[in-house]
Amino acid sequence: MLLKMIAVLPFLALCAVLANGLFQNDDSLRFNSKGEMIFPAHYREWVWLTSGLGMSYNAGAEDPNPDFDNVFVSPQAYSSFLANGVWPNGSVFVLEVRASHHQGSINKTGHYQGDLEDIETHVKKADGTWAFYGFGDGTKPASMKPKSADCYSCHEQHGAVDTTFVQFYPTLLKVAQEKKTLKVENSK
Amino acid sequence: MLLKMIAVLPFLALCAVLANGLFQNDDSLRFNSKGEMIFPAHYREWVWLTSGLGMSYNAGAEDPNPDFDNVFVSPQAYSSFLANGVWPNGSVFVLEVRASHHQGSINKTGHYQGDLEDIETHVKKADGTWAFYGFGDGTKPASMKPKSADCYSCHEQHGAVDTTFVQFYPTLLKVAQEKKTLKVENSK
Repeated sequence: MLLKMIAVLPFLALCAVLANGLFQNDDSLRFNSKGEMIFPAHYREWVWLTSGLGMSYNAGAEDPNPDFDNVFVSPQAYSSFLANGVWPNGSVFVLEVRASHHQGSINKTGHYQGDLEDIETHVKKADGTWAFYGFGDGTKPASMKPKSADCYSCHEQHGAVDTTFVQFYPTLLKVAQEKKTLKVENSK
Repeated sequence: MLLKMIAVLPFLALCAVLANGLFQNDDSLRFNSKGEMIFPAHYREWVWLTSGLGMSYNAGAEDPNPDFDNVFVSPQAYSSFLANGVWPNGSVFVLEVRASHHQGSINKTGHYQGDLEDIETHVKKADGTWAFYGFGDGTKPASMKPKSADCYSCHEQHGAVDTTFVQFYPTLLKVAQEKKTLKVENSK
């Protein structure tokens, strides 16, 4: 029996490597001893949900130098949402803000993406509550934004599913419609 | 020996499941008996590289109703590029074109993404040659675009790495700079 177990060890090690996926997705929600969120270093290998350009929730003139907003979600959360249309505890969203460029290389009109400017996360903690963290353009652990920050009330009031803006994620909007998990008043 | 092998079988099966990842990434380049490329159904779970809005390589007025261009690459190709700065045979890129919307939900200015309009792929075949396939807004197998199509000459002339527009993929541009795989004349 012991021999059989020893024979199996290399396969178990291989499984551990393979289970980790092609990349170190690092999609667990992790905190340090101070309660700060640890930067999700591999978010670019997560599932991308959408990108917007110059989006603003306040009326006003168009930004002449708009930023791109890129949204990623942790793979486990995405998989769960496809199955159920809701976000499990431990879900992590990353908002990556990048500068836009207009003319460069062979591009003549429109906008393409440039340097990183800011990273924020929106997470559903183990107790089911949501929290925001701001990392700026760095990778140091971040403390939770205070509950008085505008992002909390805005996401609670306007999120189409839970506190998330699924109305802006075209593929997930269809999932939520099928699963009937949309707050209808926020879905358009 | 046979017993040991039988004992190992469940672990091998588990490995196969785990190796497939959380999703069915379906990133193998597959063709049907007619030589048509089979639609890469799970490309939204691949690695996203960038999104542009209204990008055009021809001078002219800004498009009043610009489209978003979203670019994905197969995970194996991405992993190889991170390691080497070049694309392996079997690499698959997906260009997903979506309509943009201006005002909707709580958004007042800028642009967010809407319905799918078109999907094209750019692939490095087993023999190292590149080919383009157009799927439109459907999922039927697609025949290779003729070599006379503009996309071939444009990508050959202006690609920053091989025939690909790495100059527009901000994170990969840094990789290619480090690995010294950029065609310098096409990198800006």
